[in-house]
Amino acid sequence: MLTELGKRAKLAARKLARLTTEQKNAALHRLADALLTDQKLILAANLSDIESAKTAGLAPAMIDRLMLNESRLADIAHSVRLVANLPDPVGEIFEASTLPNGLHVRKQRVPIGVLGVIYEARPNVTVDVAGLALKSGNAVILRGGSETLNTNRAMITSLQKALSASDISIDAIQFIDSPDRALVLELLHLKDYVDMIIPRGGAGLHNFCRENSHIPVITGGIGICHLFVDDTADQDAALKIIHNAKTQRPSVCNALDTVLVHQNIAKEFLPRIIDQLAPAGVTFRAELGAMSMLQHETVFPAGEKDFDTEWLSLVLGLKVVSGLDEAIDHIAAHSTAHSDGILTQTDSNAQRFIAEVDSAAVYVNASTRFTDGTELGLGAEVAVSTQRLHARGPMALRELTTYKWVIVGDNHVRA
Amino acid sequence: MLTELGKRAKLAARKLARLTTEQKNAALHRLADALLTDQKLILAANLSDIESAKTAGLAPAMIDRLMLNESRLADIAHSVRLVANLPDPVGEIFEASTLPNGLHVRKQRVPIGVLGVIYEARPNVTVDVAGLALKSGNAVILRGGSETLNTNRAMITSLQKALSASDISIDAIQFIDSPDRALVLELLHLKDYVDMIIPRGGAGLHNFCRENSHIPVITGGIGICHLFVDDTADQDAALKIIHNAKTQRPSVCNALDTVLVHQNIAKEFLPRIIDQLAPAGVTFRAELGAMSMLQHETVFPAGEKDFDTEWLSLVLGLKVVSGLDEAIDHIAAHSTAHSDGILTQTDSNAQRFIAEVDSAAVYVNASTRFTDGTELGLGAEVAVSTQRLHARGPMALRELTTYKWVIVGDNHVRA
Repeated sequence: MLTELGKRAKLAARKLARLTTEQKNAALHRLADALLTDQKLILAANLSDIESAKTAGLAPAMIDRLMLNESRLADIAHSVRLVANLPDPVGEIFEASTLPNGLHVRKQRVPIGVLGVIYEARPNVTVDVAGLALKSGNAVILRGGSETLNTNRAMITSLQKALSASDISIDAIQFIDSPDRALVLELLHLKDYVDMIIPRGGAGLHNFCRENSHIPVITGGIGICHLFVDDTADQDAALKIIHNAKTQRPSVCNALDTVLVHQNIAKEFLPRIIDQLAPAGVTFRAELGAMSMLQHETVFPAGEKDFDTEWLSLVLGLKVVSGLDEAIDHIAAHSTAHSDGILTQTDSNAQRFIAEVDSAAVYVNASTRFTDGTELGLGAEVAVSTQRLHARGPMALRELTTYKWVIVGDNHVRA
Repeated sequence: MLTELGKRAKLAARKLARLTTEQKNAALHRLADALLTDQKLILAANLSDIESAKTAGLAPAMIDRLMLNESRLADIAHSVRLVANLPDPVGEIFEASTLPNGLHVRKQRVPIGVLGVIYEARPNVTVDVAGLALKSGNAVILRGGSETLNTNRAMITSLQKALSASDISIDAIQFIDSPDRALVLELLHLKDYVDMIIPRGGAGLHNFCRENSHIPVITGGIGICHLFVDDTADQDAALKIIHNAKTQRPSVCNALDTVLVHQNIAKEFLPRIIDQLAPAGVTFRAELGAMSMLQHETVFPAGEKDFDTEWLSLVLGLKVVSGLDEAIDHIAAHSTAHSDGILTQTDSNAQRFIAEVDSAAVYVNASTRFTDGTELGLGAEVAVSTQRLHARGPMALRELTTYKWVIVGDNHVRA
């Protein structure tokens, strides 16, 4: 069933690669307009998804996540206009040189081709990804959570109308209009037509894609994030950073999971963490050493798997370490290589931490919450990669491109 | 069985990432020295491989490929010294900026980690890859062709002695000391320890890796390469380029497979191709239109699959096309997106060809034989990627690295 989608996407991609920035930006504004024009249809479709979700007994948090209203839809449409304002990576020329034999060599940025994006029941992702794909000249096949099938169908219909009005093939933005889970596997095997798979969801989805895809996959988005509080840290500042990293938005991948505290300051500093964070509703899982320094109703002994758990909630692991070496070793053993930081005023320790902690984002004296495409100046975010090929950390428009070598000669032959 | 290799490789990789350029270069020279010191052992092991190959009835070309002698071994050792002379990509800082909020952000180049390389019976690859991996700070697990098991064992033993003498863990360069084919699959599933798989070999191996690996794979090395001869091409120069691209080394992936000739010049130019290349032993597979213009004992009608065949030998496909559009469409349908070129004096056609042919290397007025890391100024080559993630075209040291984001704040928290 998906082969036809794939073929059409590939054809559309060839044409998308040749659109000018102006054509793409005009189309993006039409996408935004269409969502607003079709607001009633989209919200009605969303209402039916919400009702099904309630009938199915979904948790209120899940239902809230898939719920649209006028203001949320306006925000989604607005975010497409912001993508129109971002610089177009396609066509960028880099590493241009003339070789000693006179060959002119350069690299030129081109779209990846066809993206397959598999995600949970979040209607905003449908539009965000469609917009980023279009701006970067890629066709996209979307596979959203089955709980939002009606919403996605209504939104895609709207987006495709806008594509048609822009003289762009509607096959540039397609979605899998079926809740059948077998189609995910079929998408992962569509190697002749799809160039890149981006899963967005939990570890289970990422592992499934990694193990079953015949297409390169960007895995990521799972963050077991650490902060090491060195004995020279500015403790007042450290408390604010820990508070921010843990509580500002605990459900996301760059939220803090574990604090490692230098033994020289642990007796003084650990109780201050509890004082600072417990009022915000945080509970703690303390390793034996830390446990012995704490007595509070919010502090529990850490279980065997606790330091390998991405909490995604107001839980924080605590551990006393003998110093920088043990901190680095703990991070090497337990981090998912997403975002890890050191809080210190000892520059040599900061430098060693930067050199030896090999995570996608390594921090000195800052909250881990900055690992985000928009926060780091990319203007957008399509995923956070924690694998090591292609792109690492936040990915936005440029990370949805590849390059070709362009070699211009004067009738050169190889000797 | 491979889990232990993987664990040790991963530990070694952590240390390799921190070696200085000087330490790595000194080690590379020791690797070269060791191969020369152990020449007798290595050649004796190679002789036993050659004898087994003869007994097994391997083709003389295959036997020649796995054969070492003093001069070949000296060349291999020398190539390791050349890698020592190349710039070290590790540690390079790029895209450094200070964000409006004062966060200092930069990207810093780091090794991929552990490479798994699966290749045919070519002893030089064992050393080439080991050298490039070491220079780029990566540990490597090698899986060479079973026909060279003894040679590889002797060479790896020698290389590991040199590592020890350099105070580097011997686990930095490991090989799978068994001809058991099931171990290839086991390597492809070692996702907790191996970060990147590079297959070097035929399409079958590449497909097997793509379909079975749980680890990101770089596929490539399969080239169905085209040259389009436009009606304004300098015909004398075009003949030299076609001759070079087809005959200079026909067995490699960047050798020419198909010539597309503009209909306006086909009657005149096609016979000149035969005159120029037939004496070099080339035979031709001509599509109907081209066939009708040619009468020569070396010209055969093209079969159904001929334009989808990588010849790797002195065979050349010929086709008449109505012009640039048909040439581009033919290439889109039949190319493996490795190396494709246009020979023209019409600049607008050259520009359209560059824009619309989406191959790893796109040529204007030059032989396709330049798609090679050394020829294009990378100083080396570990593979030629024809997939679209991470790296495209020739890959050398930098393509064996990734980056980390380094974010230095002044106690920044996210608003």
